Amino acid sequence: MDQRLKNLDFAFNPRSIAFIGATESIRKWGFLILNNLLTGGYEGEVFPVNPNRDTILGLRAYASVRDIPGDIDLAVFTVPARQVLSSLEECVHKGVKAGLVITAGFKELGEEGARMETEMVRMARDAGMVLVGPNCQGICCPKNRLYPWMPILFHPAPGKIGYVAQSGNILNMLIGHAVNAGLGISKAVSSGNEADISTEEYYAYLAEDPDTEVIVSYIEGIPDGRRFLEYARSVTRSKPIVALKGGRTRSGISAARSHTGAMAVREKLFEAACRQAGITLTYSIEEAGVTAAAFVNRPLPRGKRVGIITGGGGLGVIACDFCTEIGLEVATLSGETLSKLEELLPDWWVPGNPVDLVAGLDFTILKPVIEILMKSGEVDAVMFLWIGAPRRKGEAEASQSERGMDISAVWNVMDQHFMGFYGELNTLMHELQVPLYIATSIEMQDTPGRDGCNPIVFRDVESACRAVSAMAGYRSYLDSRG
Amino acid sequence: MDQRLKNLDFAFNPRSIAFIGATESIRKWGFLILNNLLTGGYEGEVFPVNPNRDTILGLRAYASVRDIPGDIDLAVFTVPARQVLSSLEECVHKGVKAGLVITAGFKELGEEGARMETEMVRMARDAGMVLVGPNCQGICCPKNRLYPWMPILFHPAPGKIGYVAQSGNILNMLIGHAVNAGLGISKAVSSGNEADISTEEYYAYLAEDPDTEVIVSYIEGIPDGRRFLEYARSVTRSKPIVALKGGRTRSGISAARSHTGAMAVREKLFEAACRQAGITLTYSIEEAGVTAAAFVNRPLPRGKRVGIITGGGGLGVIACDFCTEIGLEVATLSGETLSKLEELLPDWWVPGNPVDLVAGLDFTILKPVIEILMKSGEVDAVMFLWIGAPRRKGEAEASQSERGMDISAVWNVMDQHFMGFYGELNTLMHELQVPLYIATSIEMQDTPGRDGCNPIVFRDVESACRAVSAMAGYRSYLDSRG
Repeated sequence: MDQRLKNLDFAFNPRSIAFIGATESIRKWGFLILNNLLTGGYEGEVFPVNPNRDTILGLRAYASVRDIPGDIDLAVFTVPARQVLSSLEECVHKGVKAGLVITAGFKELGEEGARMETEMVRMARDAGMVLVGPNCQGICCPKNRLYPWMPILFHPAPGKIGYVAQSGNILNMLIGHAVNAGLGISKAVSSGNEADISTEEYYAYLAEDPDTEVIVSYIEGIPDGRRFLEYARSVTRSKPIVALKGGRTRSGISAARSHTGAMAVREKLFEAACRQAGITLTYSIEEAGVTAAAFVNRPLPRGKRVGIITGGGGLGVIACDFCTEIGLEVATLSGETLSKLEELLPDWWVPGNPVDLVAGLDFTILKPVIEILMKSGEVDAVMFLWIGAPRRKGEAEASQSERGMDISAVWNVMDQHFMGFYGELNTLMHELQVPLYIATSIEMQDTPGRDGCNPIVFRDVESACRAVSAMAGYRSYLDSRG
Repeated sequence: MDQRLKNLDFAFNPRSIAFIGATESIRKWGFLILNNLLTGGYEGEVFPVNPNRDTILGLRAYASVRDIPGDIDLAVFTVPARQVLSSLEECVHKGVKAGLVITAGFKELGEEGARMETEMVRMARDAGMVLVGPNCQGICCPKNRLYPWMPILFHPAPGKIGYVAQSGNILNMLIGHAVNAGLGISKAVSSGNEADISTEEYYAYLAEDPDTEVIVSYIEGIPDGRRFLEYARSVTRSKPIVALKGGRTRSGISAARSHTGAMAVREKLFEAACRQAGITLTYSIEEAGVTAAAFVNRPLPRGKRVGIITGGGGLGVIACDFCTEIGLEVATLSGETLSKLEELLPDWWVPGNPVDLVAGLDFTILKPVIEILMKSGEVDAVMFLWIGAPRRKGEAEASQSERGMDISAVWNVMDQHFMGFYGELNTLMHELQVPLYIATSIEMQDTPGRDGCNPIVFRDVESACRAVSAMAGYRSYLDSRG
């Protein structure tokens, strides 16, 4: 790892943090971000810096970084832009390894800001210090319970997805899709103006990070396209990069310019180059967030043949249409495989793929049905679609007792049966290298920390299909590189 | 209303219901659907029919429909297919107005089933009785607390959206999108094989239903295309129809054939004909469900010029791209309008559309910003995008008290400010006929019954943009009809 990335590592794994601009004014980021850091459970030392206070949130406050005893790994800046340079100078003298500049008002606001930004970078680089930001919402590293960022009291769990986003808002939304699937994150960074560390350097850092399995990235501008693609191509050899590009149209580019001062790139060229570099391109925030989550702990499909199991005929129709429309193949099952399925399914089952479980309430057949498809050699991926009405437990419990009948056995049939044998299916999936994609309306948000066992990610048919397609595409890319 | 539709009205507004096939076996639909009906709060009379029991769920059971005292408006059938004809015969003698045939095993299973289905329809029509189904999951009419359907303990609130779906599973998912937006439904029907009443007749019924403002429909097959389009064209004169077509591809058509026995239609011709008939076509379940919800209590945009307000620059970029890609226009604001906005926004605001609220925590400016755009005459629709991290109230409350600071004022800033003036904006929106579309991560599910005041429907940027486009398209269709 080069020295810059080693210093960047101090930002995610700091032993001590100076918080420059700490305050107790509850409507200021200097309070809200500090509060997120403290309530998140970070176990290193935190030193608030504020010349006008003795203590902040019960911690001793310091007038300057230089007054803090001991080494400082990370300095967080929330002071106004015009004060950043002088504070940074103190950090340089103190020998701080990394800076996180939340503060806005630099390049994105015109010439004077750009001048300050250039000076800030020069000062940091001369001292061998790295900078995240400016004009960003912060970073997180849940393994260290480290959340120096804007989203109020948002403390997602540790996991395997690494995030690099040129917009804090979109970062939150991307992470939200993982959280909703019960997954966690390895490291996340809102990279802001990228005055010092750029998107591709974050990729390089995450590529070497053992906790990160997949990288997801929101991109508005790339000043050095050649370097970006070179780094990306190196990273995708070992880890997938799922990217969403903002500024694909004239009006999007114009909005991006006023947001992060990003330079436009020629869209068609950029797309083609990304594909050559093995980047998985997506076209909505949801698609990016959910596709990244899909890569976690799931083998890549060997090809595009999909076996579909549904809890309702209509879902099978929708899945067939969508698979076909995005270039997947609805697998043709052999007579032998269909016979095996026929033995399990009711008399009125119509043989074929999708395998419709024909609205039954008996889920004991689900495991053997999935197993038959996985072992058939006739499918590269198995999708199980079980989506129905939204379920609200409170309401259900209230109603079911009304007439004194206990129907929890039926209500929970899916959870019980499915979760009971998911472990076995997970083992089989990795043994046979046939990935399983489950779309369901069951709420997974309340069961976090499932990274070792990632059964359910998808809330709808389309996102499950897109994930199969994205992962098959990445596999095909890896194969083509040999 | 013709006699068939008058009888269909008895299905949704029955004074009395015979439940043929009622049971207390908790894994049978004869129990689960009856249980949904009883726990839903239906206030009419319910008569379980089962020759082997004296009582079911505390109600007196009858050996035959003929033994029930008084008139019966609706008969629900959950008995096996081979028993439906004899039960139906009894209903005919009893003078029952409408039948809801949940039972499967008719046309979709081949010749014998088709014969039974034909005979069933003949028998009903000769007697002037109408049939919903067979092979369906049921109906609901929340205004009457009427839920004789499969989704377990799912009792959505009354509202203005009417649903007609040739798949029960997809019906549930479509309704789920309304429920998640805090909206309710007028009437919903899972139409199954449509042996008697067909999709277009349900449209005609809902067109005359004063509680229905918009119709959303999942279609797999249309036996009589000419009649379908004729009915649809008549309905769209007064109410929008949002449709999702399953079976758009060869494999989708094949799956549809084994699902409901639907006949394939030529897809390109169908699409073109639908557009001519004013039907709003959608291409995913979410798009259909959310778009339908968008029509509720919202004026139609006069054109395609969109004013965008965001709580973060990245969202504005994404919105501009997506608007452009689907044919909307990011409005160009005049110097006059920009000056008015400039007075409200901070010094560092970069004038333009999208209007980025630049990550501030002061939401008091939101209302005047929206108002300026609405009154400018330069936009046909206003979008406000405020999406961030998923919010979990329980977690938040636990964390915020940890250090004894009360930050609820910040945490709830959006709800307080926004909900406080939504009523005024709603009035303004209807006065000026400029619709407002809000995408937010705030949970609206727990605040149902907002049909008179429908602030928030969208969970992401893309679905908000699609809704603007769909509604502008419907407006343009209405204008072209004169």
